[in-house]
Amino acid sequence: MNRDTADISLKTQLPGAKAAALVARDKKVQAKATDCYGFVRALGGWAEGPFCTDVDGNVLLDFTGQIGCNPLGYNHPEITLALEKMSHTSPVKFAGTDFYAEWQNGLPSPTDLKEKIIEATSMFGYEKVFLSNSGAEAVENAIKCCYAKRGKGGIGINFKGAFHGRTLGALSLNYSKRNHKKGYPMIPNVVTIPYCGAEEKDMNGLHHCNCGFNVRDKKTGEVMSVLEQMLRKGVGVYDPEDIAYIMFEPVQGEGGYIVPNEHFVAELKRIQQTYGIPIIADEVQSGLGRTGKLWAIEHTGIVPDLITSAKALQVGATIGKADMFPTEAARISSTWGGGDIINSIIGYKTLEVVMRDRLWENAERMGNYFLNKLNDLAAKYYCLDGARGRGLMDAIEFDKQADRDKFEAECFNRGLMVIGCGYKALRFLPPLDVTQRELDIALNVIDDALKAI
Amino acid sequence: MNRDTADISLKTQLPGAKAAALVARDKKVQAKATDCYGFVRALGGWAEGPFCTDVDGNVLLDFTGQIGCNPLGYNHPEITLALEKMSHTSPVKFAGTDFYAEWQNGLPSPTDLKEKIIEATSMFGYEKVFLSNSGAEAVENAIKCCYAKRGKGGIGINFKGAFHGRTLGALSLNYSKRNHKKGYPMIPNVVTIPYCGAEEKDMNGLHHCNCGFNVRDKKTGEVMSVLEQMLRKGVGVYDPEDIAYIMFEPVQGEGGYIVPNEHFVAELKRIQQTYGIPIIADEVQSGLGRTGKLWAIEHTGIVPDLITSAKALQVGATIGKADMFPTEAARISSTWGGGDIINSIIGYKTLEVVMRDRLWENAERMGNYFLNKLNDLAAKYYCLDGARGRGLMDAIEFDKQADRDKFEAECFNRGLMVIGCGYKALRFLPPLDVTQRELDIALNVIDDALKAI
Repeated sequence: MNRDTADISLKTQLPGAKAAALVARDKKVQAKATDCYGFVRALGGWAEGPFCTDVDGNVLLDFTGQIGCNPLGYNHPEITLALEKMSHTSPVKFAGTDFYAEWQNGLPSPTDLKEKIIEATSMFGYEKVFLSNSGAEAVENAIKCCYAKRGKGGIGINFKGAFHGRTLGALSLNYSKRNHKKGYPMIPNVVTIPYCGAEEKDMNGLHHCNCGFNVRDKKTGEVMSVLEQMLRKGVGVYDPEDIAYIMFEPVQGEGGYIVPNEHFVAELKRIQQTYGIPIIADEVQSGLGRTGKLWAIEHTGIVPDLITSAKALQVGATIGKADMFPTEAARISSTWGGGDIINSIIGYKTLEVVMRDRLWENAERMGNYFLNKLNDLAAKYYCLDGARGRGLMDAIEFDKQADRDKFEAECFNRGLMVIGCGYKALRFLPPLDVTQRELDIALNVIDDALKAI
Repeated sequence: MNRDTADISLKTQLPGAKAAALVARDKKVQAKATDCYGFVRALGGWAEGPFCTDVDGNVLLDFTGQIGCNPLGYNHPEITLALEKMSHTSPVKFAGTDFYAEWQNGLPSPTDLKEKIIEATSMFGYEKVFLSNSGAEAVENAIKCCYAKRGKGGIGINFKGAFHGRTLGALSLNYSKRNHKKGYPMIPNVVTIPYCGAEEKDMNGLHHCNCGFNVRDKKTGEVMSVLEQMLRKGVGVYDPEDIAYIMFEPVQGEGGYIVPNEHFVAELKRIQQTYGIPIIADEVQSGLGRTGKLWAIEHTGIVPDLITSAKALQVGATIGKADMFPTEAARISSTWGGGDIINSIIGYKTLEVVMRDRLWENAERMGNYFLNKLNDLAAKYYCLDGARGRGLMDAIEFDKQADRDKFEAECFNRGLMVIGCGYKALRFLPPLDVTQRELDIALNVIDDALKAI
């Protein structure tokens, strides 16, 4: 089989017998986490680009991109080639902040990955990176860096709709779903403000912001942003020195693929510059070309003080200028930080391919094509409330959550894998090198699934 | 070269030119973490058991065990064989709580690993596991489980000397080094009590507990444990219902390889049974045979309510009976939870080898031999304050931190890698299948290094 001519091909109902058997086994020992459907990837079976074989021999089209962890699609030839060169060496996961390792055959080492990450953030003048095991850990370390630098007041700012991870520090900054946080202990002093998405509508359905980010201040009578109202001398209740960071997703992910509007990001930039408050750009889902730029924050004109990356990168990374990191020993550390040999190879090769082939350009071009078609569908079907996105980080919004869930099932039954976000939205994360042919296959299934609900 | 006849062999001063060059490159881009010395492992170069080649062709003896991440030593033949069977498949790190995967050629999948973990905890009757990316994440999820089950009062109990990880939730439970926590935001309501180690000495140098775990209560006049004093009706200020968990290391790791004494653990068990407070056994460093039992908690007679594992397991794991986990969707989750294909293979094979070969028996036998020799050295050298440990999780205590640091450097210069813990202690973590010959090579270097300081 080959990607250029491949299509969805179902030999069984989904899930097939083998998939159902594995899922049943897994459910017996797996602590309940998310609700996932019965797709079981056949490891070692054929898979290429967005196409993937399941254990029953069905070929599915995967537009979940493993929630952003699969930017080059399945079995990208250059990653396969690199893994073939890997002479076997264990442990592959070692104590990476205590020891070093280097390949004898030219394969990229953890150090090469760190250098590549610095190269990939050269537009921001970044100098240092701290690798970790996940996006959550990348976020936790960004918080630590900001507190080490300006922690006296100990206040962090996050946004409504935010998602930054599941560990308790990162979780404290989430504001997307109640079940994520309910009853769990949180770090203190997180102040939540509105995220101003372009999709906000007024009563007449016009694009107009009524999210609460701009407010009329009672003292001055002026309309200003809530940040300005918090911080301006004589008006605000917070001393800017006491704010350790603003944690910002350049496109909100779990919150529903919300693209921030221009006025909102311009105000964030002004606040950063006026009051010297660090902005952490959480690019765990949006980074590495996904939105039509290498980093989604590039769309905003903000130069972030720190970037957090993971998913597409295969390791967690906290990246910034040298002065954003503590210089004392042991202030940040992690046994496995920077110590995964195989994920370092894959992260390096992913960055190399994305940068060399400028895959964000394909993401932008194909994203525009796809989003236009999604908008057409939104106009055609009453159950849809709209489409939105940036590059290949796109979503459709349903009127009802039940319709979204039904749509997801209808797509899966037809061999297209997609996954929800927000409350009523559904996201699409095809590989960055997706072709128009592949998008059209997906669009046909999407149209059929919408008809069915 | 071959493990049975291998020895330390130094061709250059350490670090050699190639190692120094890689370290210099790495330091340029790596955010300052711990102070690590210039050992650069040659990936693809010869390494076996505790022996490892560096990039300058030196053969070193590694008794750091990558801080517990390398329980079977370098390039264990069964892990090498498994990795050779791996037909290339990417991404190797996928969204493991949303999708499933299974090998077509019999290699162990993430589901097989979960089943193996349940098998490895059958002595506790465990039923469910939640996989994550690190020990810290395993601890964070254990906290969440306990709060989901009995979070109303929201109080957690930890111990002096504790180390549970670096993410802010786990970090809140640390009590070992000031730099780990200084100025960082913490989760609330953590009550710290003394850890009662066998090494506590009174003024006469006798083994006798004066750690403060047992106290005379002013109300009753009785001597009782601080836990009993906290919880007993009419005496304590805490309602047992309000305590979500006791977070317990069966041997303290980072805190200095402190082995708990019998009376202390008997009291913990009594408190667990009398007041129904869950005990989380943090086995991230002590688990998988290291201490002479598969789990270090087996030495105590306590049946923990949850176990956290990582390091030797190559993935993070939170393990327990079904009723310790939330049953609602999305209460716990993680994009990469259970989604690392290669680390699942290695974790599975590690458990398989440890359990089949009962490697804890070798750990106990060789650990006793090694600890006796360390005790002899402690009697011989004034700079040493004693030796302690359990199985192959052993340490020597120095009188001064400076001597410890000097000793570490002297060992490294002679080709033996060791690493500190606590304030003045130095730990030894050879592979679980270490031989007496290998221990003797290390002991000779240790003796020489002690002579030199």
